[in-house]
Amino acid sequence: MAAPGYSADRASLQARLARIEGQVRGLQRMLDEDRYCIDVLTQVTAVKAALDKVALALLDDHVSHCVVDSVREGTHAEKIRELTDAIGRYLG
Amino acid sequence: MAAPGYSADRASLQARLARIEGQVRGLQRMLDEDRYCIDVLTQVTAVKAALDKVALALLDDHVSHCVVDSVREGTHAEKIRELTDAIGRYLG
Amino acid sequence: MAAPGYSADRASLQARLARIEGQVRGLQRMLDEDRYCIDVLTQVTAVKAALDKVALALLDDHVSHCVVDSVREGTHAEKIRELTDAIGRYLG
Amino acid sequence: MAAPGYSADRASLQARLARIEGQVRGLQRMLDEDRYCIDVLTQVTAVKAALDKVALALLDDHVSHCVVDSVREGTHAEKIRELTDAIGRYLG
Repeated sequence: MAAPGYSADRASLQARLARIEGQVRGLQRMLDEDRYCIDVLTQVTAVKAALDKVALALLDDHVSHCVVDSVREGTHAEKIRELTDAIGRYLG
Repeated sequence: MAAPGYSADRASLQARLARIEGQVRGLQRMLDEDRYCIDVLTQVTAVKAALDKVALALLDDHVSHCVVDSVREGTHAEKIRELTDAIGRYLG
Repeated sequence: MAAPGYSADRASLQARLARIEGQVRGLQRMLDEDRYCIDVLTQVTAVKAALDKVALALLDDHVSHCVVDSVREGTHAEKIRELTDAIGRYLG
Repeated sequence: MAAPGYSADRASLQARLARIEGQVRGLQRMLDEDRYCIDVLTQVTAVKAALDKVALALLDDHVSHCVVDSVREGTHAEKIRELTDAIGRYLG
């Protein structure tokens, strides 16, 4: 159980995060250019949607690896509580 | 009505966005360091909360400036529809 | 300024809420019938989306009436803070 | 695999849903009484938070039962995809 669950998909997660970083820099440029609030907000919405996809990919990987391994080891109760706590915090 | 509503608070919004950009880079480092999925997800939650605050600040500024000005000009119906459409998209 | 902003659309809001009440009773029946978790969750998602629409309608009405009236009376700063605070709580 | 995962906690889930149904009826009364938009919205926020808790309880039960059972049967890939799809729809 050396590497965390997202190892296999790390390249794809890193690509998503690099894109999000670019979108956040784009937001800073939009403010510099005095762009219309609603257009800026639309772009913030796009960043939030991209972030939701990262969160989902992390959840998927966590269940597919950590939770599945813990079932085999009979230690899943704690892993599952940790998972739903994390989703609960993400929901707000 | 030259500048958009967020002009006055632009420095504060830019500071928030610069911090979010740093958090997104921090997430990329966490993946590079094979950090535990749930810890990465907790950090994604922090970024989402920071993004919500940017969205709220933009909404506040939009209402305080664009909507208020449009009321004075009697053209607020469209501005308000634009506002609730944008909030609707943000809610998902 | 007797009636709150949603008066005109109250019939439509009440119809939405009556539908949501029916959906929540439908959820209780789904549990009684031992329906599959994911199907129950899909129905919870539909209720949440319906609730988001009620929230948006209330926001729209609040801005269209209370905020617009307050601009005319020059007392909008407080109304707008109240609005963004309420949206912030709704976002989580 | 007779009963769905939430069987054990069904009483608690049913109690939550009965409470939500009461809250939705309370919202209808608030509109009948011409209550202030922001106060109605605050109550909508409470219903949404209660609904989030139901969604989380369903997710927890689904993972604790259906996903755990499917790991033992070697059929978890599909269950996990179903789970993350459901969370994705819930996020919006």
